[in-house]
Amino acid sequence: MESVVQEKGNLSIHTENIFPIIKKFLYSDHEIFLRELVSNAVDATQKLKQLASYGEFGGELGELKVSVKLDETAKTITVSDRGIGMTADEIKKYINQIAFSGAEEFVEKYKDKGGDKGIIGHFGLGFYSAYMVAEKVEIVTRSYQEGAEPVRWICDGSTEFEITTAEKAERGSDIILHIAPDSEEFLSASRLRGILEKYGKFLPVEIEFEDKIINNPNPIWTKNPADLKDEDYLAFYKELHPFSEDPLFWIHLNVDYPFNLTGVLYFPKLKNDFQVQREKIQLYSRQVFITDEVKDIVPDFLQLLHGVIDSPDIPLNVSRSYLQADGNVKKINGYITRKVADKLSEIFRNDREGFEKKFDDIGLFVKYGIISEDKFYDKAKDFCLLKNTEGKYFTFEEYREATQATQTDKDGNLVWLYTTDTQKQDGFVQSARKRSYDILVLDSVIDSHFIGTLEQKLEKTTVKRVDADTVDKLIEKDVKLESVLSKDDEEKVKKLFEAVVAGAGTSVVVEPMPADELPVVITFPEFMRRMTDMQATSGQRSMFGNMPLMYTVSVNANHPLTSKLASLDDDAQKALAKQIYDLALLSQGMLNGQDLTQFIQRTVEVL
Amino acid sequence: MESVVQEKGNLSIHTENIFPIIKKFLYSDHEIFLRELVSNAVDATQKLKQLASYGEFGGELGELKVSVKLDETAKTITVSDRGIGMTADEIKKYINQIAFSGAEEFVEKYKDKGGDKGIIGHFGLGFYSAYMVAEKVEIVTRSYQEGAEPVRWICDGSTEFEITTAEKAERGSDIILHIAPDSEEFLSASRLRGILEKYGKFLPVEIEFEDKIINNPNPIWTKNPADLKDEDYLAFYKELHPFSEDPLFWIHLNVDYPFNLTGVLYFPKLKNDFQVQREKIQLYSRQVFITDEVKDIVPDFLQLLHGVIDSPDIPLNVSRSYLQADGNVKKINGYITRKVADKLSEIFRNDREGFEKKFDDIGLFVKYGIISEDKFYDKAKDFCLLKNTEGKYFTFEEYREATQATQTDKDGNLVWLYTTDTQKQDGFVQSARKRSYDILVLDSVIDSHFIGTLEQKLEKTTVKRVDADTVDKLIEKDVKLESVLSKDDEEKVKKLFEAVVAGAGTSVVVEPMPADELPVVITFPEFMRRMTDMQATSGQRSMFGNMPLMYTVSVNANHPLTSKLASLDDDAQKALAKQIYDLALLSQGMLNGQDLTQFIQRTVEVL
Repeated sequence: MESVVQEKGNLSIHTENIFPIIKKFLYSDHEIFLRELVSNAVDATQKLKQLASYGEFGGELGELKVSVKLDETAKTITVSDRGIGMTADEIKKYINQIAFSGAEEFVEKYKDKGGDKGIIGHFGLGFYSAYMVAEKVEIVTRSYQEGAEPVRWICDGSTEFEITTAEKAERGSDIILHIAPDSEEFLSASRLRGILEKYGKFLPVEIEFEDKIINNPNPIWTKNPADLKDEDYLAFYKELHPFSEDPLFWIHLNVDYPFNLTGVLYFPKLKNDFQVQREKIQLYSRQVFITDEVKDIVPDFLQLLHGVIDSPDIPLNVSRSYLQADGNVKKINGYITRKVADKLSEIFRNDREGFEKKFDDIGLFVKYGIISEDKFYDKAKDFCLLKNTEGKYFTFEEYREATQATQTDKDGNLVWLYTTDTQKQDGFVQSARKRSYDILVLDSVIDSHFIGTLEQKLEKTTVKRVDADTVDKLIEKDVKLESVLSKDDEEKVKKLFEAVVAGAGTSVVVEPMPADELPVVITFPEFMRRMTDMQATSGQRSMFGNMPLMYTVSVNANHPLTSKLASLDDDAQKALAKQIYDLALLSQGMLNGQDLTQFIQRTVEVL
Repeated sequence: MESVVQEKGNLSIHTENIFPIIKKFLYSDHEIFLRELVSNAVDATQKLKQLASYGEFGGELGELKVSVKLDETAKTITVSDRGIGMTADEIKKYINQIAFSGAEEFVEKYKDKGGDKGIIGHFGLGFYSAYMVAEKVEIVTRSYQEGAEPVRWICDGSTEFEITTAEKAERGSDIILHIAPDSEEFLSASRLRGILEKYGKFLPVEIEFEDKIINNPNPIWTKNPADLKDEDYLAFYKELHPFSEDPLFWIHLNVDYPFNLTGVLYFPKLKNDFQVQREKIQLYSRQVFITDEVKDIVPDFLQLLHGVIDSPDIPLNVSRSYLQADGNVKKINGYITRKVADKLSEIFRNDREGFEKKFDDIGLFVKYGIISEDKFYDKAKDFCLLKNTEGKYFTFEEYREATQATQTDKDGNLVWLYTTDTQKQDGFVQSARKRSYDILVLDSVIDSHFIGTLEQKLEKTTVKRVDADTVDKLIEKDVKLESVLSKDDEEKVKKLFEAVVAGAGTSVVVEPMPADELPVVITFPEFMRRMTDMQATSGQRSMFGNMPLMYTVSVNANHPLTSKLASLDDDAQKALAKQIYDLALLSQGMLNGQDLTQFIQRTVEVL
C-alpha cells in the first residue's frame, strides 16, 4: 500500500506553554535574569555606538552608562540604558515575539560593516528570563530616532500585553521588574551587587549601581599586547585575585582563526596544594562572565593556571554536551596547550637561571602536563627540570650525561635514584652519596605518576627510591662483596632475626654490606611500594583491600655487631638483635607506640 | 498626561525560533533524548493500563514492554511501545503543538480516579529533544481505540510536518530517529545501553534492548516495607553497588504529606576515606533517574549515605535554583535528617552492643552530623559514642560520670584527654594512664572539628590532646610537686637547653615532674596545635602563611639525669643534653634527617 498524504502543515507552539518552561527549567539559576537584562541594555548601547560610527545616528551620544536601581519599598528592580530604545513597532517585533532575536537581526543587517562586534544577544529569550523573578514587567522606552514617541509596554506574565503612551524625556529603555513574592530574596542591594559583580565585572559599557561603577569596561584581554606593560598584567591579576601573590609569568592569547579567542593566562605560585588552586580560570563570552568551570575548554593540567578566556564563539547558555562535542572547543584546547609549552620553552631558553628559580613553583604543573598530554611531553622533555639533593637542576638529557658513568648497572641500564623525603630518608641518602651516586628530590604529590611516565619515555632507564634496596644492590655492578660470615653463621643470624622481626609482609636476608653501613637496614622494594603510594594518592582501595606495605630486613653480614652476636648467650643475643632492629625501624620512621616508648626508656636507663 | 492604550494583544512565538533553543540549550546533555523518548513510551503504556483499570479499555493488554532498537546501517534508533498509540487527530494535538503536554491533560482528565500515578511527562517538550540528535523523526502509530487507522508522521526538523497513512498491525507507537551526522556517536550499542541503564534501570515498564530486559520495574522502594525482608534490602543494595561490602543498616522512607517521597537509604561501612564515598545517593522522579548530585535535597552530612530517593514532586529537568528555593525540598531535607536520627537512636536503645560494634563505621557520619546540624545534635547527643584507648564506649553523659572524680581540675572544670594516634603518642598515653586518667581515641579526619563542637556544647568541659602539656599540668590540681633543683640550677639548666634547642617557635621551661617521667618532654599547647590541624585539614593557608608548629620543651627538674648534668664538664654536659633532647624529639616523632642519622650512628657505636 502506498502511503497517502493526509495532511501537511506547520508545527505550532502556544505562548502559554512556553512561560512555565522559561520559568522552571530554561536557566539553571534564577539570578541569571540580571545578567540577561544588563546584557540587553549593553547591546542597546553598543548598537547606538555602532549606528553612530556608520553615520546612521547623528545626535549626541552623551554619557552611555547602564544603571541598575533597586526600590525595596516599591519592590522593583529597574535596568536603564541610554541606547537605541524602541518604537511601538519595534516593541511589537522584538518583545511580543518570544525568541525572536533582535540582536541577530542587527548583526545580519550590518554584517558588511563588521556589525557583530560586541553584540551579546543570541536567542531572543533573555528578556523573558525576567519572569523567573517578576510577576509583572514594564518597559518604558524611547527610540533614538528623531521624533520618536515614548511608549510603555506592560505584561503580567500571562500572555497578554498592553502598549500605552508614556512620558520619557531621554532616549533609551527602562526595564522595570515588579518582583514576585517568591523571589524577594533579590530585593537586596548586596545580593544584586553580588550578581552584577559576578557576571558584569568586565562588561564593555559602564554599569552603575548605588552611585558606583561596578565594572572595568576595558579589561586587559581586549587590548593589544604591544600596548601593555608588565605592570598592567600584574594589576589585572590583582583585580582578578585580590589576595594572591604575584604570578610568575603570563601568556596573552589572541586568535582569530579558526575560532575567536582572547585571554590572559597566569602561572601562579603553585605550592603543593593541588585542589585549592582549581577553578581560577574564568570563561567569558564578549566580556560577559559565563562560568569558572572550564573543564571542557581547557585541558585538565592547565586548569591550575589562573586568568581569563573570552570567546564569542561560545554562547552564554550553552549546554555541557554542546561544548564537549564542539570541534572549535577541541581546537581551543590544543591551541592553549601549544601556547603554554612554547612560552615555557622560550623562558627556559632565554633565562635558564630565572627558569630554575621558578621551577619549584611550576614543576608540579609541567609534570602534570607531561603525564597527561603526549603533545605537551614532546615539547616539555627539553625544558622539564630534575632537581637533586644539592639543589642543582638538570634537563633529562643533562642528567643522563651526569649519571651515566657512575650509575649504569652491569646490564647497561641507567639507574636514577630519588628521595621522596630528604629528612626521613637521610640515612639512605648519605649512604648513596658516599658511593658518589646522585639523588633526585621527587617529593611532590604528583611524582609517583611522573616517575612512571619517565620510565616509559626514557630508554634503558629505571628509577628507584634510595631505600628500594641496600646500597650495593640499588645499582648492581659486577664486583661483589665477600661475606665474613660462614653460610652456617648466616643461617643462624637469619633465624635469630626472623624471631625478632616476626611480621607479615617482611622477609629477612643476611648479606654482605660495607662495614660502615648499619647492622640492619630496612628497604622497600620499588615496585610494591610504588603501587601502595599510588593507591594512597588516588584515594582508592585496591580490590585486595588495603595492602600492607611490604619490606625487606637486610642484616649486614659484615658489621662488627653481627659478628658480636655469635659470642653472646641467648638472652643477650635477642636483646642486642632487638636493639639493632629497633634502630633500623627508627631509621625508617617505623618505630612507634610501645616499642618506641620502651626503646626510649632503655636508652635513658643506659645514660 | 494620561497614558493612552494603543494596543492590547497576545504575545506570540514562532516555531522556527524554538528549535535552536531546544537543540542548543534546553537540555544539558544530548543523551537525554533517549531518557525522554523512553519515558514517553512508558507513559503511553501506563496510560493504557490505567484506562484498562478504569474500564475504558476492554481489549487484551498483552505483553507491555518498551523496546529500543539500533540499526547502524540505516542509522536509526527506534523506540517502540504497545501503549495507547495515537490517532491522526491526537498527533495533531500532542505532537504538532510543541510544549503542549498530553501527560498533564491525561492527569487532569483522570484526577478523580487518581490518574497521576506514574505518569512521567510534564512540559510536553520531551519528544522534541529527539531533534538534538536526529535530522528526521518518524512516528508510526496506531491507537488502542477500536477501528483506529494507523498513521505516520514525519518532520525533518524544519517546522513542516507531513501525516500519511501507514501500515501497522499492532497497537502502540514506533518513534524512529534518523540520526544526524554530528550525532553518530549515538549509533553505538554500548553507548545506548549505557544511557538506558543510567536513566532507565528502574522504570516501571520492562525495557528491552538487544533481546534483554535492562531494568527492574519493581524496585524495592516502591514496595511496602511490611512485605520486605532483610535479604531484599541487601539484594537491592548489591544491585545499586555491585562491589560494595554489605551496608550496616538502612531506612525505608515513605511520606505522602506534605510532599511525596519514597526511598531507601543505606549506611555503608564508611572507613576513613571521606571523599570517595559521596555521590552514592541517586535521585529519581517516578522511577526515572535524575541525578546523583543530591546536594540541594539531602543535608551535606547525609551525602555519605547510599541509596535511592524518589519524589514525583521533583520534575525531571528542574533547575538548580528552583530546587534551592523550593519549600518542599527544604522539608525533605529536614524529614530525612529526623528519620536518620530516629533510626540511629532506635538501634542504640534496642541493641547497645550491636551499635557499639558498628560505631567505628558510623561514627564519622554521626560526628559530621553533630558538627553541621543543631537539630541532629539534639538527638545524637544521647547516642553518639566516645571510645577510649581500652576500646570501651561511652555516651557523653556516661563519660562525664566516669571521669568526673579523677579529671576535674582545681577550678572545677572537667578535662577530657584524647590521643589522635595511639602509636605516635604512646609515651604520653602511658604517662596519663599512670595517673588513672582516661584517654579518648579521636583519630578521624573530622575529630578536630568534632572536639570544637563538644567544647561549645558541653558545660565546663575542655578537651586536650594528651601531649598538650606535661602530665601534671594537663589537669591542674591544687597539689604541687617541689623541685629538687635550686632556682639557680634551674636557670643554668634552662640556658643549657636553650643553647641545644635553638629553634623558632619553641620555648624551654624547667619544672618539677615525677622522677619516672622522661628527662625532657616536648608538648604542643592545645589551642595553637588545633589551629594548625584545622588549617591542614581545610587545605587552606592562613593569612599569615604556613605557621610553624609551636612547641614547649619541658625539662624535668626532678629527673636524675638533670641533676647529673651539673656534675659534668662543658662538652659532656652539652653532649648529654643533646642526647636527652633527641630522645624527647624521638618520642614526638620529630627527630629526623641528619639528626636522626647521627643519633642512630652514636647508638650503634655505644653498642
